[in-house]
Amino acid sequence: MNNIFEVPQPGDDLVEKADQVRLASIKISQTENKNRIKALNFMADYLEINAKEILEANLEDYAIAEKKGISKALLSRLKLSKEKLNSGIEGVRKVGELADPVNQVQIKKELSEGLILERKTVPIGVLGVIFESRPDAVMQISALAIRSGNGVILKGGSEANLTNTAIVKALQEGLNASGLDKNAICLLTSRKDSMSMLNLEKYINLIIPRGSNELVKFIQENTRIPVLGHADGICHLFIDIDANLDMALSVALDSKIQYPAACNAIETLLVHQDIAKTFLEKAIPLFNSNDVKLIGDKRSVDLGLKYEASLEDWRTEYLDLILSIKIVDDLEEAITHIQKYSSKHTDGIITENISTANEFMNVIDSAGVFHNCSTRFADGFRYGFGAEVGISTQTLPPRGPVGLEGLVTYKYFLKGHGNIVDDFSSGKVLFTHKDL
Amino acid sequence: MNNIFEVPQPGDDLVEKADQVRLASIKISQTENKNRIKALNFMADYLEINAKEILEANLEDYAIAEKKGISKALLSRLKLSKEKLNSGIEGVRKVGELADPVNQVQIKKELSEGLILERKTVPIGVLGVIFESRPDAVMQISALAIRSGNGVILKGGSEANLTNTAIVKALQEGLNASGLDKNAICLLTSRKDSMSMLNLEKYINLIIPRGSNELVKFIQENTRIPVLGHADGICHLFIDIDANLDMALSVALDSKIQYPAACNAIETLLVHQDIAKTFLEKAIPLFNSNDVKLIGDKRSVDLGLKYEASLEDWRTEYLDLILSIKIVDDLEEAITHIQKYSSKHTDGIITENISTANEFMNVIDSAGVFHNCSTRFADGFRYGFGAEVGISTQTLPPRGPVGLEGLVTYKYFLKGHGNIVDDFSSGKVLFTHKDL
Repeated sequence: MNNIFEVPQPGDDLVEKADQVRLASIKISQTENKNRIKALNFMADYLEINAKEILEANLEDYAIAEKKGISKALLSRLKLSKEKLNSGIEGVRKVGELADPVNQVQIKKELSEGLILERKTVPIGVLGVIFESRPDAVMQISALAIRSGNGVILKGGSEANLTNTAIVKALQEGLNASGLDKNAICLLTSRKDSMSMLNLEKYINLIIPRGSNELVKFIQENTRIPVLGHADGICHLFIDIDANLDMALSVALDSKIQYPAACNAIETLLVHQDIAKTFLEKAIPLFNSNDVKLIGDKRSVDLGLKYEASLEDWRTEYLDLILSIKIVDDLEEAITHIQKYSSKHTDGIITENISTANEFMNVIDSAGVFHNCSTRFADGFRYGFGAEVGISTQTLPPRGPVGLEGLVTYKYFLKGHGNIVDDFSSGKVLFTHKDL
Repeated sequence: MNNIFEVPQPGDDLVEKADQVRLASIKISQTENKNRIKALNFMADYLEINAKEILEANLEDYAIAEKKGISKALLSRLKLSKEKLNSGIEGVRKVGELADPVNQVQIKKELSEGLILERKTVPIGVLGVIFESRPDAVMQISALAIRSGNGVILKGGSEANLTNTAIVKALQEGLNASGLDKNAICLLTSRKDSMSMLNLEKYINLIIPRGSNELVKFIQENTRIPVLGHADGICHLFIDIDANLDMALSVALDSKIQYPAACNAIETLLVHQDIAKTFLEKAIPLFNSNDVKLIGDKRSVDLGLKYEASLEDWRTEYLDLILSIKIVDDLEEAITHIQKYSSKHTDGIITENISTANEFMNVIDSAGVFHNCSTRFADGFRYGFGAEVGISTQTLPPRGPVGLEGLVTYKYFLKGHGNIVDDFSSGKVLFTHKDL
């Protein structure tokens, strides 16, 4: 990867910009909930006011990209229709309706008489967001950042530069009109700046990458700033000996085909040997009729699969209508396979046996462990978080689908009236440690 | 630093050991609370049974270290008296009395009829602990690891090798006698292994360093495993114009001298210009009579301080009876100084003005922001957490003093009865998102 991307040291210009965002972020971190909601409404208003300009910028981006021969998939993500823009604007307003993630009291206790400890949520500071194409992401992530009292430095794909610039101009006008510092949202437009961001650990507190696995992986490996996101999504579904086979077929199909390009779609199906024959007799025609290419281990090829899997298949995220199948001796072999190949995103089991389900769910160390349901439910909106900032596959929190809570941290507020530790060491005063 | 420490690739031996700990950690992560408490009691029992052997090993370590001419401070930390051992054993039992951090339900909600989401705390997996001298740390950190259902790989200072080996042998016997896998606790005794641990990201989920700032900094910069800890503790206290000066003197003195080698002791005192003369008239003799060397900016030297500070002083953690003093024009200058030099550990203000206090506490981005009390309260035990795993100065959680909650993470358990996402996309079924 090192020959594709580079991580140059940030230039003075970038440091200057980042410092402005940092200063603006300190101001916005002090704003009341109602003022942040007001800012979101102004941001939406100014997107509407500038809609014509934004759509024209997008037409221009599109024409340039088309001339350059950019792929159809990229072109379709780049395209910002009037409907897409309107739904993006609606989205900005909707973020205002989410519960305020800031100033939530997590701990409140008396340490000793008149010495009160509070742990409250506070904004993280400055977010660095690197995304590819999709100008609608600018609106969404800016809204989430402002909602949670953070500043944000955005870097989008260069093919959407004109669109992104027009959107950010409107968002800044909105911020300004609402009385907040417009520097809280900043757009970088050169690739050099994009990568230099990774060295801005003094200014950026969290990097949120939105793009290909390669981009995310590169970012994770080339910055000391915490990264909220995940590279691979290699999810498994295990069909146990005690599975209801109709349910197994329906959930397996949904987990694969409902949206195969999603990170929470399954890549590998593990099937208990004792039901493999019956299951595959129904599964093979079902997947075939849904255009899913099945690639299996030796035993499943013996039971009718056309393509034999190589070792590489077990660690491949197809993101496509391809599914690898492995027949396992028992629960233990299924668990061992998952422990070896899972990307710790989401892994599920289909079984009517509660104790088997519990063992699977307890032992599998993934952000999501699912029983008798589709892995496609692993998603911030489906979990009811109202928003999804990203999905994290790291072990430490935040883990799994992350809503607005991923954009705040906490700090400890201790208020006394002259309390000193020496009085406690000498035994003159005692700790009470009472929850309030 | 790179010429002092090296990070070699782990050898086959170490990988084998780490794999054993990982397997043991999976088993212990499944154990019930009562069995983990039972294990702690057995660990304490076997420390008692092996007390003679442990104390003899320590005498031997001590004799070797003395012969090598190791510093007095190190020797005193190395020394394990019968009393220190007994209090360590008592500490192991006490950890059993802490609330179980595992299996705590954080979120429970119905996503749709019969589709139930739970977020529950689970052990992190394997902890890697690197510490210097202090054989009592082995007992404490092992107890915390087992309490929270984790495995632990320990690496102590080589001067305590015989003591640590004897302690870990006893702890393993205790684990074994209680029916748990003794491999959940593992001791490494060579420096090479110690540094190779930093490359074991597939086996170790969290590194906890306990040692000098240099060691912690080196570890933070040379591993991709999350690190729970902090390098510097550069804490400030600001004496505002509206301070009660007697309180200011008392809290400033306590924050500096109560235990100057602690990370939560202050290194810099900021004094509002309008009260600087009155304050320093009393503070200089008070600190002098407590053997505190005062180093100040030009203005405080004009008011009677003997030593003038260099730029370097503002970023130095003295860990000693030395205090730097700076006179500031106002709250804003105090805040700007702290934002520039604070290590984001703990910073405090002394003032009777609530609105000044609130502004200071809101704007200062440190793990702890204190009003009218000593910075020395920044500590897991004083916060009432029952234990302190470490103090983190990073922005993202866990932040500040971290108790047992720093040794668990969470995962999402989703249980259904065949639910598929396609039914929701088609509108056939609706999300309910009800908290349970």
